[in-house]
Amino acid sequence: MEKVNLVEKLALFDDYWSPRIVGELNGQYVKLAKLKGEFVWHHHEAEDELFLVIRGSLTMRLPEKEVVVGEGEFLIVPRGVEHCPVAGEEVHVLLFEPKLTAHTGNVRTEMTVKELDWI
Amino acid sequence: MEKVNLVEKLALFDDYWSPRIVGELNGQYVKLAKLKGEFVWHHHEAEDELFLVIRGSLTMRLPEKEVVVGEGEFLIVPRGVEHCPVAGEEVHVLLFEPKLTAHTGNVRTEMTVKELDWI
Repeated sequence: MEKVNLVEKLALFDDYWSPRIVGELNGQYVKLAKLKGEFVWHHHEAEDELFLVIRGSLTMRLPEKEVVVGEGEFLIVPRGVEHCPVAGEEVHVLLFEPKLTAHTGNVRTEMTVKELDWI
Repeated sequence: MEKVNLVEKLALFDDYWSPRIVGELNGQYVKLAKLKGEFVWHHHEAEDELFLVIRGSLTMRLPEKEVVVGEGEFLIVPRGVEHCPVAGEEVHVLLFEPKLTAHTGNVRTEMTVKELDWI
């Protein structure tokens, strides 16, 4: 049983929109990701998704509003809700979600990463 | 759907070893707690438990070692593993665990909080 240092793990990769797994508990994964630019609109049929911002400022576009999530803040996007994450500058996030969650949800695009790596 | 600011939520309470609920997803709760002093040795029969340190330094006593978890670090204590959290100075943590988890696990003491509040 080893602790995980978020900044050290984030230093291990540089690509955007490609979450890495850093923990597993109760059928859920803890993931880290670096985001920059605009992702794709998508939703998750059966999974709620938590975004905790470690660094930077994440804009979450939602059907009727946008929420700007800053450092030390989190947003839970409930299942079924369309959302599109946008990062003007580089953003580092921690994600909590079920092991089966695909990060692009119901949408398959060239941004979809099929197999996530543990780091 | 509103974002949650960890520092703002932590400012809403002062008591130790009394987690508050700040989010719910996929049958799990996100909780915040302030810790100081020594808790009780306990384990959780069927739940893994994540401790993410927001402020301070948490010592987790385990059967064969201790792990010191600092700011920006997390530790997952797997189900069944005896553990005793100790905070020399005040520590603020984010917890992620199934909704049914009792914070003192298999042990009921005067420190056990039966009904957790949402803040």
